[in-house]
Amino acid sequence: MSQDLPVSFTDIALAAVRIEGHVHHTPVLRSRRLDAILGAEIAFKCENMQRIGAFKARGAHNAVLALDDAAAARGVVTHSSGNHAAALSLAAATRGIPAFIVMPENAPRAKVESVRRLGGEVQFCAPTITAREAMADAIAAERGATLVHPYDDLLVIAGQGTAAMELLDEVGPLDAILAPVGGGGLMSGTAVVARHMQPAIRIIASEPEQADDAFRSWQAGERLAGDPPNTIADGLRTMLGSNGFTILTALLDDFATVSEAAIVEAMRLVWEVMKIVIEPSSAVPVAALLERKVDLKGARAGVILTGGNVDLDQLPWQAG
Amino acid sequence: MSQDLPVSFTDIALAAVRIEGHVHHTPVLRSRRLDAILGAEIAFKCENMQRIGAFKARGAHNAVLALDDAAAARGVVTHSSGNHAAALSLAAATRGIPAFIVMPENAPRAKVESVRRLGGEVQFCAPTITAREAMADAIAAERGATLVHPYDDLLVIAGQGTAAMELLDEVGPLDAILAPVGGGGLMSGTAVVARHMQPAIRIIASEPEQADDAFRSWQAGERLAGDPPNTIADGLRTMLGSNGFTILTALLDDFATVSEAAIVEAMRLVWEVMKIVIEPSSAVPVAALLERKVDLKGARAGVILTGGNVDLDQLPWQAG
Repeated sequence: MSQDLPVSFTDIALAAVRIEGHVHHTPVLRSRRLDAILGAEIAFKCENMQRIGAFKARGAHNAVLALDDAAAARGVVTHSSGNHAAALSLAAATRGIPAFIVMPENAPRAKVESVRRLGGEVQFCAPTITAREAMADAIAAERGATLVHPYDDLLVIAGQGTAAMELLDEVGPLDAILAPVGGGGLMSGTAVVARHMQPAIRIIASEPEQADDAFRSWQAGERLAGDPPNTIADGLRTMLGSNGFTILTALLDDFATVSEAAIVEAMRLVWEVMKIVIEPSSAVPVAALLERKVDLKGARAGVILTGGNVDLDQLPWQAG
Repeated sequence: MSQDLPVSFTDIALAAVRIEGHVHHTPVLRSRRLDAILGAEIAFKCENMQRIGAFKARGAHNAVLALDDAAAARGVVTHSSGNHAAALSLAAATRGIPAFIVMPENAPRAKVESVRRLGGEVQFCAPTITAREAMADAIAAERGATLVHPYDDLLVIAGQGTAAMELLDEVGPLDAILAPVGGGGLMSGTAVVARHMQPAIRIIASEPEQADDAFRSWQAGERLAGDPPNTIADGLRTMLGSNGFTILTALLDDFATVSEAAIVEAMRLVWEVMKIVIEPSSAVPVAALLERKVDLKGARAGVILTGGNVDLDQLPWQAG
């Protein structure tokens, strides 16, 4: 089965070797009190403490470090205004090559500054998906830069899988592993590595109800466009990629969708009880446990907390 | 020298054995980016992730677990509305004995509920120090309950020292160790253990400028009452205890005081960069580094992050 998939366990193992020393081996945390509330024994993989504050550092470093010197010298390009833009800028700076980051002209000033601080060259475009993709393609053609897609690039997927690899390596046998799905890069890498390392593990995806294209695609057996995503989990407002669809169709055991209220409640609970800062996307699998959307009573499960980049001036449980 | 002090390294080593399994061995975290900002290499001991969200769990468990069965059966009593009240309630519940917690009648509802949730019996008194102490003494006399002072009790000081013991044990030789001073329990335990384990280490206390009685006492060589404390660091609004004064006078190398603005800035910086939730008291030694109040350029230092109990609805960098 998994030998037919676009990303193999070997690809992820190679990624782990490639990115070692460039990204953090993040801590795994546990909480007795949260276990009591969630009714299961949870090991949290803290990618919020990863470089640039999100797991995206893994995939971006893998893609940049895998380039041969000639290709690397021409740089990399992507379209993103989120964590992938910061991650690719950092990875390119580490290798001493240019990173061209296409952003909509209305991107928040803070995100533009953050990418520039990391050495990325921001190129503005009109705020449409077509304009973004066209400009990224144009830069790739003109400069010979390598396009590194935020979630459907195979090296990116392999890099994201290293988080689950570290988790399973550290905590041993688990009954289940949970992560959120946006474009599907993290969930795909997680699924490949988990199925290989612990064949009997339950692989559970999670998504906001209000951005459930991956859930509906998985149910239907074909990629469906959802309604326009309208979720507080800003990292998950993307559509499932084509490679992600192939991998998740083959490997997922279960898929939970959660309400916006549950996401905010789970996020706040993690801050209060675990004393860590997570972004709304990270709270999605926790919300699935909190709402008992998956039956894991008494089970040992791993949850990947994907990132911790939030605006501390405007928290989702505060009005206004 | 340290053999004349009220608490010895042996007392702390015994505390470590006594409380093992009852409190968490908390993680030590590092941050490349924060090191760059602070100009030193820092190992952060995360007592914000301790049970009840603060190092106070250590001292309270040591005091409760050290009681003989007859004394234990009569319970423990303290006056506190903060982390020590929660810690003593938890420790008493673990041992199955009553904890009487004297609180001012105007204590915030959330703190009263938190103590009750942990099994503490709340006794209200008039909101003055005299009334608090009188009621605690009365309960001790009537019930035969043991008074466990929040910071000047010798078993409490010994218990608090176990945090630094774990830190030094884990990270090896350091140039300096920093912690904040409120009543002096944590700083005293830290100083005793650090001087014993690494005799050449610089032991550095820190305090808000607006609650600097310990700093002025240390300078003067006698315990001085300060102005009424007026700091956002609510855990440090207490006066240095008498045992704490003796220990700190003997062992401190340096003492930094910091502004309120620096405390808030340091707190926010730790949330943003390290993705962990710390309370203002925890930010005080970080503020001392941030403001370069102590010369630690290029040094390796340990910082004890004391707790993470904050009101998430009202953060200090938010107006109103």
